[in-house]
Amino acid sequence: MHCLLTVHGLEREPAAALEHQPFPMSKKDAPARPEARLPKGLFDVPAQEIRATEKMLGTIKGVFESYGFEPLDTPAIEYTDALGKFLPDQDRPNEGVFSFKDDDEQWLSLRYDLTAPLARYVAENYQNLPKPFRRYQAGPVWRNEKPGPGRFRQFTQFDADTVGASSVAADAELCMLAADTLEALGVPRGQYVVKVNNRKVLDGVMEAIGLGGEDNAVRRLRVLRAIDKLDRLGPDGVRALLGKGRKDESGDYTKGAEIDPSEIEYVMAVIEHEPFVSAKAKEVAAWNKKLRANATAEAGFSELDHMVNLVSAAGYRDRIRKDPSVVRGLEYYTGPVFEAELTAPIKDEKGQPIRLGSVVSGGRYDGLVERFTGEKVPATGISIGVSRLLFGLQRLGAYKESESQGPVVVLVLDRDRIADYQKMTQDLRAAGLRAEMYLGDAGMKAQMKYADRRNAPCVVIQGGDEKAKGEVQIKDLILGATLTSIENRDDYLKKQAEAQFAVPEADLVKAVKGVLARHQA
Amino acid sequence: MHCLLTVHGLEREPAAALEHQPFPMSKKDAPARPEARLPKGLFDVPAQEIRATEKMLGTIKGVFESYGFEPLDTPAIEYTDALGKFLPDQDRPNEGVFSFKDDDEQWLSLRYDLTAPLARYVAENYQNLPKPFRRYQAGPVWRNEKPGPGRFRQFTQFDADTVGASSVAADAELCMLAADTLEALGVPRGQYVVKVNNRKVLDGVMEAIGLGGEDNAVRRLRVLRAIDKLDRLGPDGVRALLGKGRKDESGDYTKGAEIDPSEIEYVMAVIEHEPFVSAKAKEVAAWNKKLRANATAEAGFSELDHMVNLVSAAGYRDRIRKDPSVVRGLEYYTGPVFEAELTAPIKDEKGQPIRLGSVVSGGRYDGLVERFTGEKVPATGISIGVSRLLFGLQRLGAYKESESQGPVVVLVLDRDRIADYQKMTQDLRAAGLRAEMYLGDAGMKAQMKYADRRNAPCVVIQGGDEKAKGEVQIKDLILGATLTSIENRDDYLKKQAEAQFAVPEADLVKAVKGVLARHQA
Repeated sequence: MHCLLTVHGLEREPAAALEHQPFPMSKKDAPARPEARLPKGLFDVPAQEIRATEKMLGTIKGVFESYGFEPLDTPAIEYTDALGKFLPDQDRPNEGVFSFKDDDEQWLSLRYDLTAPLARYVAENYQNLPKPFRRYQAGPVWRNEKPGPGRFRQFTQFDADTVGASSVAADAELCMLAADTLEALGVPRGQYVVKVNNRKVLDGVMEAIGLGGEDNAVRRLRVLRAIDKLDRLGPDGVRALLGKGRKDESGDYTKGAEIDPSEIEYVMAVIEHEPFVSAKAKEVAAWNKKLRANATAEAGFSELDHMVNLVSAAGYRDRIRKDPSVVRGLEYYTGPVFEAELTAPIKDEKGQPIRLGSVVSGGRYDGLVERFTGEKVPATGISIGVSRLLFGLQRLGAYKESESQGPVVVLVLDRDRIADYQKMTQDLRAAGLRAEMYLGDAGMKAQMKYADRRNAPCVVIQGGDEKAKGEVQIKDLILGATLTSIENRDDYLKKQAEAQFAVPEADLVKAVKGVLARHQA
Repeated sequence: MHCLLTVHGLEREPAAALEHQPFPMSKKDAPARPEARLPKGLFDVPAQEIRATEKMLGTIKGVFESYGFEPLDTPAIEYTDALGKFLPDQDRPNEGVFSFKDDDEQWLSLRYDLTAPLARYVAENYQNLPKPFRRYQAGPVWRNEKPGPGRFRQFTQFDADTVGASSVAADAELCMLAADTLEALGVPRGQYVVKVNNRKVLDGVMEAIGLGGEDNAVRRLRVLRAIDKLDRLGPDGVRALLGKGRKDESGDYTKGAEIDPSEIEYVMAVIEHEPFVSAKAKEVAAWNKKLRANATAEAGFSELDHMVNLVSAAGYRDRIRKDPSVVRGLEYYTGPVFEAELTAPIKDEKGQPIRLGSVVSGGRYDGLVERFTGEKVPATGISIGVSRLLFGLQRLGAYKESESQGPVVVLVLDRDRIADYQKMTQDLRAAGLRAEMYLGDAGMKAQMKYADRRNAPCVVIQGGDEKAKGEVQIKDLILGATLTSIENRDDYLKKQAEAQFAVPEADLVKAVKGVLARHQA
């Protein structure tokens, strides 16, 4: 086999090029063939999934637009310091994000969400924006994480945010937006739930158990991240992370928040729905009293009630409910937090149940813009995990995309007459039909196989005989596929005649349109 | 001013985090506020431009689908060695692309085009693809270049490629696709041209002047890149680059291909349309004879003629023409090369003419898949520079996007009744209208200003008086804006009554629909 590298590619480069990183080749080594593979956690998306995703994005966009949000795009690359570092689950700042240095030695990163770039955009353009500023954005984000089942290093988010609105009416609206979006995507009411909570409640709980103040910031963050894992690790896993710490299946040890066992039980009581109804112990009663007296917690409870009133008045009470276990792992949230999940059990291809997790999540982050400007700018937003939601919807059968029909394929029987076949193809396209001429080198049989493979509704055939008569043959592949099941000879002949027939060249477009019309739903 | 970093953000990180790069902060320094700014060459895209781009992408997609191409998406990040290094205009391999190391020390890069990832995809999945494989892909690509006017570090390409077709019928089809796409986007026939050439002609010329063979690979590449700059540098700039070299405006020196002056004149004659008609000198005649005898050049001429025959037969002769100066800067092309440009003069906002360059470009690259597999896989493709084309079309007035109407804005006059306003807003949305409740803290006047700013067609008003009567006021902002120009008092009062009126609460949706209907085109 001939190695192309000696003809095209690196070998053609000026010699100096070959002595630099990151290319591992040097002039002295024999040029090695690169392996065609993708880095872990990154995937190609085939046609059918693209079509389904695009349909889904279109539906989401329609709902977001109906709520008055306007589109904004920001680039994939930002200054690392502008993005900040707010990802959960890693403690080193260059983990979690893909970073690299610019020519001027400043660090750049690929965005890890769409919220941090929005904060940068708002801080940069604040004077010129309508206030409140309501924008939606859809696009890929990148996380430099250990990939695993359902964990990718590139995935698509679809966000809506309202910046400059301090009222929880803005948060309530986003919860309703989440509900309306899921229903627009075909999830029946009752098969999803939007859960809301408020970070201030948890902040109050932490103050009540003595975790307030700057000195305890790291421990508070550990509590937050521990609770966020309730779904995945269960109560005992969370207890371990609230206490000494926990070793996971891979042997990695996560240091705990080191709070006392009795305080752990109180935190668990709060997040497991029992803060004020527990009959367990005097200690709980005493803490409850402290919590009631805590201004932060009271603000949290009050905001929660207000949100529930607003969604109830708008008729969403059956779809949006309080859930004290919801905290969200991103540390920048400052008030209401919310997430939506599908409630119907989801199974994988083998029938095993899957824990899908939340498909929409969000919350209020009143501090992100202030990070840049020093001035308080209240803000709240939601983010839809597009791929995860699509996967869930497909598993539930809630989301049906119509299968896309392939092109009409014009066969090439006589290579000298390729210009004629091309002309027929262009005529079909000019009439608004999806068509292509076979462009490979293979014979009739392989061309028919190709047409099948492309899901072609019919093929156009013109060999020497047809040409001599000024005709073309049309072969209906959909009808043709049903012929073998016909037992009655007359029926068979009749159907066969319908499935393949000749028309004058001039009637090509009309005849193909007739065949396509047979198979329209 | 209070610095938020002490409350949210990095300060909350475990202490260890602060001692790592790429974050420039250390525990000892006072936390500095990051500046809200984008790296050079990267830009935010506002709503109107997004809408125009999406409309444009939809049109392109429609044409590409009609040609039988299927969508494919690949991730932004690939292994550096899999992408290869085929960009023009830089001689160091880590220039031009954004690269960074993975955890396992392998180099990753952001894709710099959509062709290299396609070659990787085809090599990886060859057995399972229909052949020929026809795919389109739209998406951002990144180039780590010195940004300048019209040169960005992230931009969108829209590509169509046919892999596994060796016939120039595949190339001819792509030229027709380019023409059909431009017309679908509103460029009138005659205001664009698709220019085709063949790399084999230039290869033959270089063989004829003694630049054949592996030893001259670097010089051939320099010739290629010199000719590709004809548009920008003019004939004398190209002559300099074919000879000793050239210093540009910034003082950077580009080494030339160092070919003899008389040979330079022959190359110039070839690319300036005069290869066989020059009466200049015996030398030219002698070279022409050599060129005619050169098998590579002859193959190039023959393929060109075949392409012209095919597009002529399909009725595209007036839009697609041969142009010997077209070579394209990407070194991986092996046969037909083509580019489309808008022919009408384009001016910037100040009326100064702009050299837009080609808006579609492409060619045959029979070696890119073989780079991985060692097996020859012919392939050809085109790429549309989406942003550049949109800019050109907008400057020409060829592409009109309808201005998007803002949402109906429900004003908030009584903060205690926010749930009622929210309910009205949801009722409007449920009826399919674009609506939002004002979510800021400002008074009536600022709310009206906000509605104007959002391009709202009307606002909904319900203060205490209206509430008492069970009514809402609708104010038509479009009609209202015309009132000041009315001089006749009766006309004014009549129009004023139409522009602001009260309806029973229950008729809100109907009344708003009535107002919107007034202003539909």
